[in-house]
Amino acid sequence: MIILLVGMPGSGKGEVAKAFRRRGIPVISMGDAIREEAEKRGIPKTPEGLKYVSLKVREELGPGAVAILTIPKVRGIIKRKGIVVIEGVRSPAEVQEFRREFKNERVIILAIHSPPKVRFERLRRRGRSDDPKTWNEFLDRDKKELGFGIGEVMSLADYVILNNCTFNEFQRKIEKVVSKILSNWP
Amino acid sequence: MIILLVGMPGSGKGEVAKAFRRRGIPVISMGDAIREEAEKRGIPKTPEGLKYVSLKVREELGPGAVAILTIPKVRGIIKRKGIVVIEGVRSPAEVQEFRREFKNERVIILAIHSPPKVRFERLRRRGRSDDPKTWNEFLDRDKKELGFGIGEVMSLADYVILNNCTFNEFQRKIEKVVSKILSNWP
Repeated sequence: MIILLVGMPGSGKGEVAKAFRRRGIPVISMGDAIREEAEKRGIPKTPEGLKYVSLKVREELGPGAVAILTIPKVRGIIKRKGIVVIEGVRSPAEVQEFRREFKNERVIILAIHSPPKVRFERLRRRGRSDDPKTWNEFLDRDKKELGFGIGEVMSLADYVILNNCTFNEFQRKIEKVVSKILSNWP
Repeated sequence: MIILLVGMPGSGKGEVAKAFRRRGIPVISMGDAIREEAEKRGIPKTPEGLKYVSLKVREELGPGAVAILTIPKVRGIIKRKGIVVIEGVRSPAEVQEFRREFKNERVIILAIHSPPKVRFERLRRRGRSDDPKTWNEFLDRDKKELGFGIGEVMSLADYVILNNCTFNEFQRKIEKVVSKILSNWP
């Protein structure tokens, strides 16, 4: 089973990934594929370098490029474990690559939804170097993500967790949905 | 307050609209604007005629056209009642038209999410003349809706109701969210 984890910036994907890891389920990140590709090509892993690599691979392999780069690792984990969570899926083209490559696996989409105002407050508090400081910076980043087609992927999710509540309530919702998904496996 | 109701085909928007109507809150439909425009232009209100009108008005007024056509009616209701639900919003351009026109009103997005398989079964059972009969017809219709940008609107929703449960549970969720939204009004 392949679980594609999708959500806008600040929606709480990280907490969901942790819940799977706690149960011994491997989680891999689409972002890592870009970092490894930069390494391979000898391009510095600065924000600019990574941006260059992600544009370059899309030019070379099409809109599903990052999924294509991730496939060998996914194949290995599926062979050993039979299950994997993939974090950071962004476009319908990526979903299609996974569905095409893993025809005999169940591929499900798990979306995390959080209202824009809640995500903004969370990102502002988090304060990673690339996190937005103002509402306009936040809208710009959202727009960039939506440009990849993340909205389409979310609208077609098989499971949705609403992160519009306290941290503890969110954790309870995560446990409930993760249990439900795993109850169908193997 | 303006409540924009958005959801993929078969997600259960109609039930949510009913819940608002039961509380005496006016609900208007973006589809009606197209039907009225066809009437005005003397174009028959057949599926082909309506499709022609919706393409034509977008050509004339841009991607937010259907919202622009709806604005006079919304303005009237807001003046009399102070609150309205608008059903069938499809694109970020439409949301922007409402936000621009009604700067002093709270404009919120309420999304209804239901997993693709559940929506397909529901539409097949419903069997309106334009409802999909096969999985491929269903995917085609979804693709058309997503082409308008409905996924982007849903990803930016302020409230989401998950319709992945029994009818009674869905009704309870609707009541809860509708009460929460109305608790902020006036």
